[in-house]
Parts: sequence; structure tokens; C-alpha cells
Amino acid sequence: MNNEKLQELARKHLWMHFSSMGYYQEHDVPIMSHGEGAYVYDIQGNKYLDGLAGLFVSQVGHGRKTIADAMAKQSEKLAYFPIWNNAHQPAIELAARLAELAPGDLNRVFFTSGGSEAVESAWKLVRQYYTEIGEHRRFKVISRNLAYHGTTMGALSINGLTDIKNVFEPLVPGTYKVENTDAYHSHLMTDGMSSEEFGKRCAHEIERAIIIEGPDTVAAVFLEPVQNSGGCIVPPDGYFQEVRKICDKYGIMLVSDEVICAFGRLGHMFGCEKFDYLPDIITCAKGITSGYSPMGAMICRDYLMEPFLKPDKYFMHGITFAGHPGACAAAMANLDIFEKEDVLGNVQRNEGLFRELLESLYDIPIIGDVRGAGYFWGIEIVKNKATKEALNEDEAKDILFNFLSPKLYENGLICRTDDRGEPVIQLSPPLICGPDELREIARILRKVLTEAAELVAKL
Amino acid sequence: MNNEKLQELARKHLWMHFSSMGYYQEHDVPIMSHGEGAYVYDIQGNKYLDGLAGLFVSQVGHGRKTIADAMAKQSEKLAYFPIWNNAHQPAIELAARLAELAPGDLNRVFFTSGGSEAVESAWKLVRQYYTEIGEHRRFKVISRNLAYHGTTMGALSINGLTDIKNVFEPLVPGTYKVENTDAYHSHLMTDGMSSEEFGKRCAHEIERAIIIEGPDTVAAVFLEPVQNSGGCIVPPDGYFQEVRKICDKYGIMLVSDEVICAFGRLGHMFGCEKFDYLPDIITCAKGITSGYSPMGAMICRDYLMEPFLKPDKYFMHGITFAGHPGACAAAMANLDIFEKEDVLGNVQRNEGLFRELLESLYDIPIIGDVRGAGYFWGIEIVKNKATKEALNEDEAKDILFNFLSPKLYENGLICRTDDRGEPVIQLSPPLICGPDELREIARILRKVLTEAAELVAKL
Repeated sequence: MNNEKLQELARKHLWMHFSSMGYYQEHDVPIMSHGEGAYVYDIQGNKYLDGLAGLFVSQVGHGRKTIADAMAKQSEKLAYFPIWNNAHQPAIELAARLAELAPGDLNRVFFTSGGSEAVESAWKLVRQYYTEIGEHRRFKVISRNLAYHGTTMGALSINGLTDIKNVFEPLVPGTYKVENTDAYHSHLMTDGMSSEEFGKRCAHEIERAIIIEGPDTVAAVFLEPVQNSGGCIVPPDGYFQEVRKICDKYGIMLVSDEVICAFGRLGHMFGCEKFDYLPDIITCAKGITSGYSPMGAMICRDYLMEPFLKPDKYFMHGITFAGHPGACAAAMANLDIFEKEDVLGNVQRNEGLFRELLESLYDIPIIGDVRGAGYFWGIEIVKNKATKEALNEDEAKDILFNFLSPKLYENGLICRTDDRGEPVIQLSPPLICGPDELREIARILRKVLTEAAELVAKL
Repeated sequence: MNNEKLQELARKHLWMHFSSMGYYQEHDVPIMSHGEGAYVYDIQGNKYLDGLAGLFVSQVGHGRKTIADAMAKQSEKLAYFPIWNNAHQPAIELAARLAELAPGDLNRVFFTSGGSEAVESAWKLVRQYYTEIGEHRRFKVISRNLAYHGTTMGALSINGLTDIKNVFEPLVPGTYKVENTDAYHSHLMTDGMSSEEFGKRCAHEIERAIIIEGPDTVAAVFLEPVQNSGGCIVPPDGYFQEVRKICDKYGIMLVSDEVICAFGRLGHMFGCEKFDYLPDIITCAKGITSGYSPMGAMICRDYLMEPFLKPDKYFMHGITFAGHPGACAAAMANLDIFEKEDVLGNVQRNEGLFRELLESLYDIPIIGDVRGAGYFWGIEIVKNKATKEALNEDEAKDILFNFLSPKLYENGLICRTDDRGEPVIQLSPPLICGPDELREIARILRKVLTEAAELVAKL
């Protein structure tokens, strides 16, 4: 089918996500055709470095025949069977492998079809767990300003992004937001404050919320190791250790939402390992299959299953496609590649270079902050670096969406321009990228951001 | 890996869904190994007729090489790319094909990863749609007693199954339940009442709820063509026409939740075609790929996109794995089989026989009601057929879970025993089943239900 026909059908029938469909009535929809390693190609044959790994997904890159073959083999053998009162080898083996990979006694794996469902499952589990042990009043959740945790109504309620949330209210009650750890903007950060002191202050915000809400009504704190939305917000030193202590003090669970940060994004199999804390639950998805099949999971510490091991008790939750045999086969083949090609080692060996390359952009006058970890970075665009003066809303939209997005794309780099907090460019390349690809990213960024700086200077 | 090892790993690591994990600490988990057509085999080599199509999923049966190959081919080419400001050929082609297959102007396809997400998407769309057209107060949803609509918190709120819901409250506010159309039990049904009259009464319940809640606050009515939970509850004559009229009268949307009923389950591509009504939105999943990949979709009438075609407007919702290229390829190959093998025709040709075979079981004293349509049937178990006296809760659990479930399984039939309403056995075989398989189902049911009747007689 040619581009013209595809454009016509896309306009008439495909409701794209988080996208202005009005725009695409008058402009061509970019149509991706195929991929190879860290690169994707559109149907006109243009080549792009996939600097977002699809959507924080394609850890081992595109075109992996071993994963495709593993899925096909499993699909022919047993494409689908539920894990409701039944099991199958792919789900059992993957659960065991994830338990082996996850730190501590994070040993119980509840599969889902994606990230939102993993977050929903965690909130539901925490609620029922507390009911089963007699702490009936615990159902509330604390999360952070600007944080994104998913799109279904439970997960959406936990979001700290008011713009994508308020139009859908009323949502699930019992969610409370605290300050995130964005050192570049936080009012909790003062001049000369150490990272550790800042971390304590941020953690204290969580404790304050717990106390205000009533400690025996709070069930869980949901945090990403590195917060995606807002632009790769890293935790200050000691932050997670302090949060862990606070959670323990009040008997509240710490859920590490690793839908983005698990599976090597930060150079470790799980994000919590990078910052050395043990959550009660890890939620994950995306990179678990490197996107070769939809899949997610919630990984729980052993104690969480205890009330459900009693006679006639069970977690009253389930998902048709959870533990999907083909998805499990894809995840196993994906993890095989992680081992065989030392994917984590590759990130660890090159993350310093990636940081250096991105930090070298600081001489461009609109680069306010460069933050992140591993292969997960955000570059914040400002109007005035010295004063941290921000672009106003219209300027930000104009620079991000009318200039940076199309220009980066034209120059062969796919990344994310995001204005859900302050304007940022986000990078999250496939974990197989080496120095060459990282340098290419920096080169394109320098070129386009320099042009953007000239535009901003004229504002 | 042998059974013993798999059992050990399953016990330690796999959190099965809606399942008593305590039970499986002491009993073997049934482990499915492979499938072929309408049959599945466990790792001991035992053969079962998959009378539930996995979980209302495996429409074209197990072991389909053409679907596995199509997925593998697409996965090697482009395994994943988001449909956020981008598209790819598999998603465009599948959207166009679904629009072509769906009745009326149900032309706009929003993909999801499964059924719950489709229901969530529908509720979110309806809410934002009304906000965009200035009817800000419309957010409430009306659904039916015992109905199941999903497992994430938004979808869960719409459920009429209090048992799987109340432990997770508070949920999303604004959901209201009305009587379902179970003619066997409904207090709205009186002796000698025609199906049409009963249908009007049931529809009137929806109108009453709308009036009580305030017509300008209600956004949508969510109904399955045949209600799954409660045991394949069919609509009375004219019910959907009456509901459609009521929705139109008050400007409320009718969402046809076809996660189970679409893709041939009732002998038509979509369930609404069977009962000849045009909903505003169809939600679907499961059979869309026959389970070869997780996938779901919301199919909308054209007018629903109109407010989102204006400049800078967009539906503020999106899902990472939506429109997954491999899943789209699986769906396309699945629909090819529907065409090539006339799967709908097979159901239409044999549904009469299936009905006859199941109704022939009425001579067994515990068969209270046999209801359903197409290849989707429920058999309700009672204590006394003449008085409709029900088994009490303990008796029902005992007969269903200690006798019927294991006995049917031992006899080589997988089906569902469900006590979420009155006790029922549910059947939903692959749509490729012919007279032989349908007769085998009836034969096993007769044998086991006759034994169950003897047990019940002794109660």
C-alpha cells in the first residue's frame, strides 16, 4: 500500500494516541516502516536514530530475529492459555527468572499486559492486603508532582500531571501529591544545600503528607527511581533510604514504579538497584520484552502473598492476557540477549560518556539543566540560563513543537519534546547503543539546539 | 523442565490470577503444554476440549502457523513503535479493516492492549467528549447487576459484581447499576409476560436510573450484547432498540462492551449486529487476535472524533502498547482465517445444533436454565427445578468447585464453573468447532451433570 493510500486510511480510521488528529487531517502522518538495531526507517526510506527506544521500550533494539522466532515457536505450540487456575511453562519460567533477577525477596510475580495494569495491580494488591490483615482503613496513595504512572483510571489518579487528569475527574479518591526531587526548580532546594540534605527535605515532604492524611489510612507511596515526567528527575543522595525508613516507620508500602527504569534503562536490571533500596513492590512493563510483545508485571516481596495463602483466600484480581505465552517467550529471548550481549555492561561502560556528551551542550545558551542517569536523560530548555527564566507557555509550545520536534526529526533523531512540566527534550536510546550512536545523538542535538537558541535570542 | 520442577517454581514465583494460591501450595497446578485446533494438552499428555476458548479468546483455535508466522515476520521488520504522533502500516491497515467490518459509521479505531483498557478508554473518551462540547456535568455511567466490564479501577467501578469490587473501594464515583435481563430470575418478569414486554421493563429500569441521577449528568450506558457474568444472559426481544431510543432521548451514549461477544462469538463479527442495534462505541479485545497477541480496541462512531479535530484539541489518553505492530499482524492473520474458513458461517450453521444439544440436558434434574446465543452458553444449576430453589452458598461451592470443576476436567472438558451470580457452567468453545466437538461437549456434560444431580439429590 502506498503512502497516499495509507495517509487516507490513517486519517479516516486510526485514532492516534495523545495526538492532535486535526493536525494530521492537513499534514502527513509519519509512518514507520522497519527497524534495525538502534535505527528505524520511515516508508520514504528516511533513517532515524531511535533516541527514545520507541517509547522507553526497545532496549535491545529493532529487528531481533531470535525474539521473533521464539514468539512464533511458542505461538504455534500454545499461543494463549489463561493463568487463572492453570499455568504454562513460559509463565512459570519467566516468573522464576524475574524473581531470580529481582533483588531481595521480591519473589512473587503477577503478570499484566502493560504498565498501567501493573500500577493498578499494585494499588489493588496493597488495598486487599491491608484489608486481609485487618488494617481496613489503609487505601490512600502518595505520589509526586508531575509524575506519570499510567492511563487507566486508578493509575491516572496516582498521576501528578494535572493536565491529562483533570478533564477526567472525578477519579479514584485517596491520592495525594508531594514535591518531586527536581533540584533545578524545587523550592525545597536552597543555595549551597547538599544533595543529601535536599533528599532529606524531599523525603520529609512524604512524611508530612502521611501525617496530614493520617498514617493508618495511607497504603503506599508510588515513586519512580528516576521520575520520567518533568524530565528525568533523579533522586538526591540518600532520598530512597530516607523514604524507605519513613515507610517502615508507618507500616506503609514503597512501590517502585519501574515501567521505564527496569530492564537496564539505568544500567541495572531494576532501577531500585541503581539507588540501592528494596521496595515492597516493583511495577514494570515496556523493556520486559523490549516491546516485542505487550507485557507488564508486578513483582512482590514474599510477605505480600502470605494472607493469600490461607484457605479460600485469593487476590481478587486478574487479567485475560496476563502471562501470555508468546509474551513470556519474547521476554525470555529478550533476557537471553541481555545476558549474551552484556547489555547492562554496555550501559554501564557508556553512561559516563553519554553524560559527558550531553553536559557538553551546556554552552548553548538555552540549556538550563541536563539531568538523568544511565541511558535516560532530560535536557531542560530555558529562556535565560543565568536567571533560569522559563519560556512562557506559548513560546515553549512554539520552540518545542514548531521548531525542535520537526527539526530533530528532519535531522534523523527521534526523541521526545515534552511540555508537561518545564520544556524538556528526553532521550532514552536503545541500550545497545555504543559511543558512535551516543555521539551522533549529541551532534544532532548540538546542531538543532544551537539554531533553537538563535530563535530564542530573538524572542 | 519436568513437572516437579515446574510445580516448585510455580508455587514459589507465579502469582496466578483470581486463584487460591494456598490451594496450589498443596495441589498440583494444571500446566498446559500445547494446543491444536479446539484441543489443548497438559504436560502429562492429557487431552482436553477447550470449551472456553482459553478465556473467550481462541476463536480460530490453537496452533495456527499462519498467525505465528505473520507475527514473526512483522516482529523482525518492526516489532514496536508507538502510535503517538506516528503510525505504521499494520495499525493503519487493521484500523481500516475493523472500520470496514464494524456496522454503520463506527469508523474510528482507538487501539488498546486489552479489554479493561478498552472500557477505560471508552469512559475517558465519553467524559472528555462531553467536556469538549460543553456538557461538563456528564460523567456518570449506568451498567447492570452482576455484569463484568474489567479489572482496572475505572472498568472495575462499572462492574456489577460487588464481590470482586467492594474490597477495593472507594473506586471511581458515578457508577449506577440496574437490573439485568435474566428472565429466569428477574423480579421484572412475571408469568406469561412476553419477551418484548420484559425487554421494555428492563430498558425502563435504565431510563429510571437516568432520571433519578439527573439526565444531564449521565454520560453512557455500558452493556454487553450477551452479559457474560451471571451466565450468558441474553437480551429480551426489542431490548436494545428500546435502550437505544432512551439513550437518544437523553443524549447519552450506548457503549456495547463486546470484549467477549465480538469476533464471531455470537455468529457475527460484532455482537450488536446479532441484535441489530448501533452503539456509539464498541469495546473489544480477546478474539481480535484469537489470543495470539494481547490486544484490544475501542471503535467509535465518526461524530465522536469531531471535537478532537479542532486545532490543538486531542483525546488526552494513550497506551504504550496500543496498536502494537505484532499484535496488528496477528489480528490481520486472524481475520484472514475468519474469511478464508468462513468462521462466522460455521457458527451460524452449528449454533442451532449447539443450542439443541445443551437444551437436551434439561431432563437432568439440576439443570434450571440453559441460556445463550451463538457459541456462548450458560447452564444454571439449581437444587429443585420445579421451585427454582437454589443451592445455598456452601452447597453451590461444593458442587461447582469440589465436584463439577475437577470432574469435567478429568473427563476432558475445559469450561467455566462460576458462582459470581447463581451457579453456572459456561461454554464458549473455539468458533471452528463443528458438530463432532459440540456433541463431545454435550456428552461429557451429560455424564458429569448426571452424577452431580445424584449428589444434589442427597443434599
